[in-house]
Amino acid sequence: MGLITLLTDFGTADGYVGEMKGVIYAMYPQAQLVDIAHDVAPQDVDGARLAITRYWRRFPLGTVHMVVVDPGVGTSRAALAVESDGRFLVGPDNGVLSPALLRSDVRVVALAIPAQASATFHGRDVFAPAAARLAGGSPLEALGRTYDAPIVRRTPEAKRLVDGSMSGEVITVDRFGNLVTNLVAPRGGSVVLGDRVVPIVRSYGEGASGDVVAVIGSSGLLEIAVRDGSARVTLGVARGAPVVLRPAPPSA
Amino acid sequence: MGLITLLTDFGTADGYVGEMKGVIYAMYPQAQLVDIAHDVAPQDVDGARLAITRYWRRFPLGTVHMVVVDPGVGTSRAALAVESDGRFLVGPDNGVLSPALLRSDVRVVALAIPAQASATFHGRDVFAPAAARLAGGSPLEALGRTYDAPIVRRTPEAKRLVDGSMSGEVITVDRFGNLVTNLVAPRGGSVVLGDRVVPIVRSYGEGASGDVVAVIGSSGLLEIAVRDGSARVTLGVARGAPVVLRPAPPSA
Amino acid sequence: MGLITLLTDFGTADGYVGEMKGVIYAMYPQAQLVDIAHDVAPQDVDGARLAITRYWRRFPLGTVHMVVVDPGVGTSRAALAVESDGRFLVGPDNGVLSPALLRSDVRVVALAIPAQASATFHGRDVFAPAAARLAGGSPLEALGRTYDAPIVRRTPEAKRLVDGSMSGEVITVDRFGNLVTNLVAPRGGSVVLGDRVVPIVRSYGEGASGDVVAVIGSSGLLEIAVRDGSARVTLGVARGAPVVLRPAPPSA
Repeated sequence: MGLITLLTDFGTADGYVGEMKGVIYAMYPQAQLVDIAHDVAPQDVDGARLAITRYWRRFPLGTVHMVVVDPGVGTSRAALAVESDGRFLVGPDNGVLSPALLRSDVRVVALAIPAQASATFHGRDVFAPAAARLAGGSPLEALGRTYDAPIVRRTPEAKRLVDGSMSGEVITVDRFGNLVTNLVAPRGGSVVLGDRVVPIVRSYGEGASGDVVAVIGSSGLLEIAVRDGSARVTLGVARGAPVVLRPAPPSA
Repeated sequence: MGLITLLTDFGTADGYVGEMKGVIYAMYPQAQLVDIAHDVAPQDVDGARLAITRYWRRFPLGTVHMVVVDPGVGTSRAALAVESDGRFLVGPDNGVLSPALLRSDVRVVALAIPAQASATFHGRDVFAPAAARLAGGSPLEALGRTYDAPIVRRTPEAKRLVDGSMSGEVITVDRFGNLVTNLVAPRGGSVVLGDRVVPIVRSYGEGASGDVVAVIGSSGLLEIAVRDGSARVTLGVARGAPVVLRPAPPSA
Repeated sequence: MGLITLLTDFGTADGYVGEMKGVIYAMYPQAQLVDIAHDVAPQDVDGARLAITRYWRRFPLGTVHMVVVDPGVGTSRAALAVESDGRFLVGPDNGVLSPALLRSDVRVVALAIPAQASATFHGRDVFAPAAARLAGGSPLEALGRTYDAPIVRRTPEAKRLVDGSMSGEVITVDRFGNLVTNLVAPRGGSVVLGDRVVPIVRSYGEGASGDVVAVIGSSGLLEIAVRDGSARVTLGVARGAPVVLRPAPPSA
């Protein structure tokens, strides 16, 4: 099938993504390219990592996920190819591939950097060729040496407090202005954000227009939303804001 | 062939669209996904509906059009699958599918909502699986029960006035700042917008730089444009502004 | 294989790109469409031309590149189909196809404009059908008459000054705020921008945070960048700004 997904912060208008696509098709004409996004905020490694969490295991076994959000391109950071849970990923060693790296069954190689590779565009000269080869059936080991140096892994986990609450943070704000937290949601309870206590409801559409509610998002994480509005705008909250999950009192 | 088009207001950076694409490829690896747009303004059902008007019948018979602009997700609004003029559409019952629903030969079923479906992401858990099944050859009836409740249908039609003029409105403003109206254009005549009378010409390129002109757009609707500029900016007009089409006087 | 790439300034939300894709699939169901970009700044012919420079020859032989950045649509400007270096291109005669037209082995025909073509949307009614036919194997000559009128060609070349310096300009600013120039870079030397002398280094990652550096970009052209920042913002420079390349002094 040869599925290769692409996630970058390149935008598309400059033609860099087109260049990478050309390289892949030239090496592997049977490739089936799937755009995930190219409008990741420039150099937003954390945002890209959270997006990958959502999609990487939804794709069929054998899919190659190519990720180029790479502020350190041209420095000594390693370029990785990863096999995890039956999928492949290629991208820089800056934490962006963490969702796949945090599994136990992961294999990692460091891609060789060709002498003629541009120091500013490993997406074209390192990652695209590696993705094309993996999609074409090359084994991971053919792409580079096993990488056993420390790998950058990031995971934003909520912490349990002594009173049974969970302390977390807003990990991203989506296009609708919903505040996605790292709180794994129970049924019931409430979320504290600043001096506001937000009830947990079943869907965005519950409550009246303008109400601030918390819902269990599609990844199982609690999100704070405003009915018919934007929680980002209404609450003036950005990524990193602390939140606390209070469990529901025992039912009477 | 398995063509599935995607139209959403999700943006791409958050990874939701990637998640839906993964679900489709996992269910139906032969799918051929076609991005229409993911940058519809958040919850702009009317804008999405107008876009669909343009493209849905251009695609080959059997194409599945998936549309997820869905402010009511998780409420009691129905999730629909539609067969109309040889194409299929899946999307919420909020009027967005009107271009296909307004035809006479339409069949509609209400998609079952699985118990485990996320209350916030029917795109992934309801519409993507339905699109994959339709593209793979499932008959419409296999996806849900025939829907005979009232369906939301929207159509912005211009009205004929007693003096023979047509009264309409600006139904959308495109990326170039052109004001697209719901006036079906004759050859000749003029358009009245506020206290301005705009002549109807043959192409954007007619007239001098900065001229305000009306042209017959590619969908047969009158559009108001500014040569080498933006009618939206020059005229300060937004969606919903009233316009009147005055027929040409009888030729002498 | 039937690869067809698409570059436009249409945005996607209005549905025009969807319309063109439908036309192509309806004429040639085996097409493999590749989005390059649709967010080229409205009517930015120069920006589109620079993007094409990057990607057009990266794709396999036989690829069809469709380009619709076309402020003159509906006027007398010719609609071209071009064969150059084994690839095909279709687009307006406004200079946007210059990267392919500047080669010696180029063949050009003028596409016939059907009588029923919309005067505002040749992308749908002229260029998409031509791309579908070329991808399906039609010879160039089947699409129109050989075009021997003068063709618009643009090329921004740096000029050699009497002291051995090269005088050029900023030809585009990419999404990261890097200033791409038309200076072909030697190893060593420095770039003068206004009253600032910028050293040439090997990668964006060299130097301290906030440093202004010049690097040899992935197309071989000098780019001016700010480490962990935006040269556009820091230097307040836009497309067209003059730059001078001073060669390195002879090594001692």
